[in-house]
Amino acid sequence: MRHFFSERMSGLDKTLIRRIHDLADSSSINLGLGELRFPTPKSIMEHVREKSSEWNLGYTSNEGLAELRGLVAKNCGYAVSPDQVCITVGAEEALFGLLMVLVNPGDEILVPDPGYPAYPSIVKMAGGTPRAYSLYPEDNFALRSEEVKKNVTAKTKVIIINSPNNPTGAVYSREELRSLARLLDEKGVLVISDEVYRDIYYEDEPDSIARYVQSFVVINSVSKSFSMTGWRLGWCIAPPELAKLFASFHQLAVTCAPSISQHAAVFALKGLAEAEKRQNLEELRRRRELALRCLERYTDLRCLKPAGAFYIFVDISRKISRYGNSLEAALNLLSKEKVVVIPGTAFGQRGEGYLRLSFAASAEHIDEGLRRIGRFFG
Amino acid sequence: MRHFFSERMSGLDKTLIRRIHDLADSSSINLGLGELRFPTPKSIMEHVREKSSEWNLGYTSNEGLAELRGLVAKNCGYAVSPDQVCITVGAEEALFGLLMVLVNPGDEILVPDPGYPAYPSIVKMAGGTPRAYSLYPEDNFALRSEEVKKNVTAKTKVIIINSPNNPTGAVYSREELRSLARLLDEKGVLVISDEVYRDIYYEDEPDSIARYVQSFVVINSVSKSFSMTGWRLGWCIAPPELAKLFASFHQLAVTCAPSISQHAAVFALKGLAEAEKRQNLEELRRRRELALRCLERYTDLRCLKPAGAFYIFVDISRKISRYGNSLEAALNLLSKEKVVVIPGTAFGQRGEGYLRLSFAASAEHIDEGLRRIGRFFG
Repeated sequence: MRHFFSERMSGLDKTLIRRIHDLADSSSINLGLGELRFPTPKSIMEHVREKSSEWNLGYTSNEGLAELRGLVAKNCGYAVSPDQVCITVGAEEALFGLLMVLVNPGDEILVPDPGYPAYPSIVKMAGGTPRAYSLYPEDNFALRSEEVKKNVTAKTKVIIINSPNNPTGAVYSREELRSLARLLDEKGVLVISDEVYRDIYYEDEPDSIARYVQSFVVINSVSKSFSMTGWRLGWCIAPPELAKLFASFHQLAVTCAPSISQHAAVFALKGLAEAEKRQNLEELRRRRELALRCLERYTDLRCLKPAGAFYIFVDISRKISRYGNSLEAALNLLSKEKVVVIPGTAFGQRGEGYLRLSFAASAEHIDEGLRRIGRFFG
Repeated sequence: MRHFFSERMSGLDKTLIRRIHDLADSSSINLGLGELRFPTPKSIMEHVREKSSEWNLGYTSNEGLAELRGLVAKNCGYAVSPDQVCITVGAEEALFGLLMVLVNPGDEILVPDPGYPAYPSIVKMAGGTPRAYSLYPEDNFALRSEEVKKNVTAKTKVIIINSPNNPTGAVYSREELRSLARLLDEKGVLVISDEVYRDIYYEDEPDSIARYVQSFVVINSVSKSFSMTGWRLGWCIAPPELAKLFASFHQLAVTCAPSISQHAAVFALKGLAEAEKRQNLEELRRRRELALRCLERYTDLRCLKPAGAFYIFVDISRKISRYGNSLEAALNLLSKEKVVVIPGTAFGQRGEGYLRLSFAASAEHIDEGLRRIGRFFG
């Protein structure tokens, strides 16, 4: 069968994150979660129950319901037309499709290290070369345009940035975004700004590079903001010509995003589920405090206090010698203490010496998980 | 902006089908429909209303809910394991993803002419060369293995077949499928069998090449069977190694199919919506009879009586001289009589001289539409 397989898939396998989860059983304490476990807001569920039989649940237009595209454009915080919005099967399809319609073989795409592992994987699948720009712990994992500049070549076409950041929890400042915007305008590099954690923040509201740069694509979804991962509802906002090209891709790849999810998202983006969204964010804030407290109480590990998202990137570099690397440490932690965490190397070379802990878990699991982590690292 | 675009998208634009629909206004009579306009079965809507707040609507596993994969395997009619099933964002994502994981530049992929336009478009996007095998009207658009054989070269990797067929309505016989299976086994060509219309038939139940051939992939969905197009819920059944590779692609492209749609499909595939499914099929049968009667009453155009799907492929070759070709005829029909039909060339060169009429429209629209078509062609 293998002789049938295309080369673009060679070396692409399940992500390290998925493989770690596959090793875990249901009795494990899961601090590896990449999604909130809050249910879909009750007000949205009620709306679906009450209204779904009135909705047309056939195909929508490829680009999505006009009302939803309008709400995305209206809510984004900068001037775009609804025609620039395409509704996608979660942010993942937006990311995937954008790279498919942008990347030629030989193109270099700048991706963060550490960063979301799908960035380099999809770039490779599209035939491009991912080139990492580093985020440094001693710099609080900030976005440094000088660091990006070092990696810009004649082949650089696109840069992917992600704020609030997975896995570090960093939120990029206006100064960082402005400085990068100047560089990208000068070099003619297109930015894809992955803003799926934009609504999950604990200090200042995250800013968007879309406000400062000439050419941008913004990706977002209701997955994290409204704990609606399984609804598969996201979008991209792109320059008009690119939005049109993206829609051609999108038609061939998935036809359109699920209709029922689009209707549910209209309700959410109208602001009719804000109370629960706020409650969830408050609960996350409490869990963040708890996780930081437990880290201090049970361990002597260091971390950056996350300003956004729901991850703590924990420094285990001083503890790692007996395991060799962070992957081995994570595997040992799973087998000895039944705690799932993601090794930093899942996010790139710069992640070595780190573990990503998610505080999307319950308070009990956060406390018990960190107690076990403390015992494990001794 | 165009200098950013990847070459794989060059020449790919909205399909002719979409462009024709874009020209139509809401007062047009639409005989171009590619979906049933029946609402989602009431029993399914009721199930969603009653149970959705109990469902976990977060991510499912990439491959889909175990129960749904099991039902697909159990219902397909031949022996496969649930591990061979991946739940997708409609049949479209299955088709798209399979071609992405199979096609290398230079590979030749056999596609039907006339046939669903996405086949050659996706093959091109994946870097392959679509090579058409012809279906002939004088042969009732049957699948002829001799015709396929003529087009098999050393570069042929995959053939796509589609029964019941869009746009011709033909259903391939056991003999046709067996004869093709023998050829494909001999030549080592993998078949992708697109069976999305499998449950929409008016004579003998359609057979599947999966029963006769060594290596196959079958694609299906709930879109046509249960009038659930907008739920974006399909699947592929593939050899184990290919199913595993497909899941890696699927994770990067869309993460997973929508959870709520997966739960709704579990209900449908358990057979709990069969009464409405049967009623819909009976209604379609009545509309087919009506469309054939109206064709005879109002026009002197010839067609093949469709054995499956919900299209009639109508021969306008004797009437076409004053328009030049079927596209111009369709555009004129739309502007003069406000009737939407799809020109045969949307489906390939062999479609020239034909129009595809959908009888998914209401009885009133079928009657009035065909009356106008009769007047138009005079």
